[in-house]
Amino acid sequence: MERNIKIAVDAMGGDNAPFEIVKGVAEAVKLYPVKVLLVGKEDIVKKELASYTYDEESIEIVNADEVITTEEVPTEAIKNKKNSSLMVGLKLVKDKKADAFISAGSTGAMFVGGTVTVGRIKGIDRPALGTCLPNMKGYSLLLDSGANVDCKPQYLVQFAKMGTVYAENVLGIKNPTVGLANIGVEKEKGNMLVKEVYEMLENTEGINFIGNAEIVDIPKGVADIIVCDGFEGNTILKLSEGLSKMLVSLIKTEITKGAYVIAAAALKKPFDNIKKSFDSDNVGGAPYIGFKSLVMKMHGSCKSPAVVNCIKQCVDFVENDTVAKIEKLIQE
Amino acid sequence: MERNIKIAVDAMGGDNAPFEIVKGVAEAVKLYPVKVLLVGKEDIVKKELASYTYDEESIEIVNADEVITTEEVPTEAIKNKKNSSLMVGLKLVKDKKADAFISAGSTGAMFVGGTVTVGRIKGIDRPALGTCLPNMKGYSLLLDSGANVDCKPQYLVQFAKMGTVYAENVLGIKNPTVGLANIGVEKEKGNMLVKEVYEMLENTEGINFIGNAEIVDIPKGVADIIVCDGFEGNTILKLSEGLSKMLVSLIKTEITKGAYVIAAAALKKPFDNIKKSFDSDNVGGAPYIGFKSLVMKMHGSCKSPAVVNCIKQCVDFVENDTVAKIEKLIQE
Repeated sequence: MERNIKIAVDAMGGDNAPFEIVKGVAEAVKLYPVKVLLVGKEDIVKKELASYTYDEESIEIVNADEVITTEEVPTEAIKNKKNSSLMVGLKLVKDKKADAFISAGSTGAMFVGGTVTVGRIKGIDRPALGTCLPNMKGYSLLLDSGANVDCKPQYLVQFAKMGTVYAENVLGIKNPTVGLANIGVEKEKGNMLVKEVYEMLENTEGINFIGNAEIVDIPKGVADIIVCDGFEGNTILKLSEGLSKMLVSLIKTEITKGAYVIAAAALKKPFDNIKKSFDSDNVGGAPYIGFKSLVMKMHGSCKSPAVVNCIKQCVDFVENDTVAKIEKLIQE
Repeated sequence: MERNIKIAVDAMGGDNAPFEIVKGVAEAVKLYPVKVLLVGKEDIVKKELASYTYDEESIEIVNADEVITTEEVPTEAIKNKKNSSLMVGLKLVKDKKADAFISAGSTGAMFVGGTVTVGRIKGIDRPALGTCLPNMKGYSLLLDSGANVDCKPQYLVQFAKMGTVYAENVLGIKNPTVGLANIGVEKEKGNMLVKEVYEMLENTEGINFIGNAEIVDIPKGVADIIVCDGFEGNTILKLSEGLSKMLVSLIKTEITKGAYVIAAAALKKPFDNIKKSFDSDNVGGAPYIGFKSLVMKMHGSCKSPAVVNCIKQCVDFVENDTVAKIEKLIQE
């Protein structure tokens, strides 16, 4: 297998690092034509890797002595820990030694580090964090899901364009529909920001804008891409997470009461199926879209399948020349 | 029973009007010391009322020939339909012929009509719509849940104060905790609005501010009162509604597959219990807090128990002199 695509992976980021990260990498290099630059403390990573058999050409360890934790203030962390796995990984991308970077570490540090190291695509004011939000039909790409809490209208128009290119080229959705997250379906609904964005999206070429995605209908799967500012997007994401947990817990409490115990046992499989459809490991990662190369954020608690899926998304992103396509659509 | 409290009820508003509204009123006057002014088309309301026995002193029909629909633009509707049940009801409050007004009709028309007819409490910039949002511990009072989509920081501080007085005097919560809806628990998290509001709430006397209510934790019941702007609040409310429906539907689909049919039948009761805890009829209505008298919005699809609960809330609101208490706290 010719390994044309090089991906830097942060071996030290996330709750289950390095074990699950290294395990995922060892699996992915068997499936995809990638060379992984595994960034982290050399001795630790080497020891982890020893458990797996893999093509020697497919994995290279790149030493990085430090680790940025999620508790650190991003702007300070990236300044003070230049030799962290996160910053070394981003620098590999900057220096064209890697085509993409994946980490389950600090979301904020990845965004700030990505901005100062990798840099933005020409014409993009703010890269957005895209998240695949599960719904009745599958999932929607929600962006921005948390990177930019205060947005100008043109940022959201850029999110719509970037999301369209990403969904087409990486998620394989043809002519994806774009909905604007709003508290009503009518054009005149919403706050000042979304009203202004609605007008702009109506007049934007190259996207399939279908109007407002009313919040109550988002779980039904009203649009392939949901556009919003990062505060709204993070609200949607985190409330979905919190509420799903609450409801499953409520239902479990109810059905394990007294006479329902037998029924509950019979229902283990259906519940597992539902849990699976909400499992972020199946989706992989959340891309920061808008940097000159792909920077992928994995969930802090992710396991090896997420790593495999993320690497797959990086391959599609690079092979389909996604950055050039975004740059083209932005300038239209 | 001495009927000191007078409540105007819109007999024509909502999907199940007038039947469920009139039914609820006929029940409520048996339970509470109220006189209800039932506003609507006299012949229709009279015919509905004929099905019930009640103390003749307890219900009076007030004729109103028109009805404002939810499709109408609020500002135009309140101008063009002065003789609508909604506007006649609000005018009864303005003229001190009623102490409160209840309707399941147009949310927007109630807000605009309430502002121009009933008027705001001194010191209140914007009345807020408060909604009881179900959670693991019971519910939180979420305000603003949709009336004011663009907010200045001081509005949210006023919401916190009004919510505190309402929760204490109507919901019976002693020293209620106030949380600021935010995408993180740390003080420095969030957009410009919530960062500014956080600082202000920290220095506000007379409320029990406990910091940020992180979105993911809202379903756990982190605070008695959740404060936010109306766009954020409506997002939280509508996503909770949409997602609950989606999850229950997903679970039903799973458990009614093949071998689980028997188990599903056994689970009818637990599911009904869960449904009940999310049933807005049990909560009653959503108060517009900040008007000189209480204006209560019921869900468009509400049934008679909601009417009964709403009237109960109006009684507590009036008996506990809630407006005077809000006015006092606002001026502190």
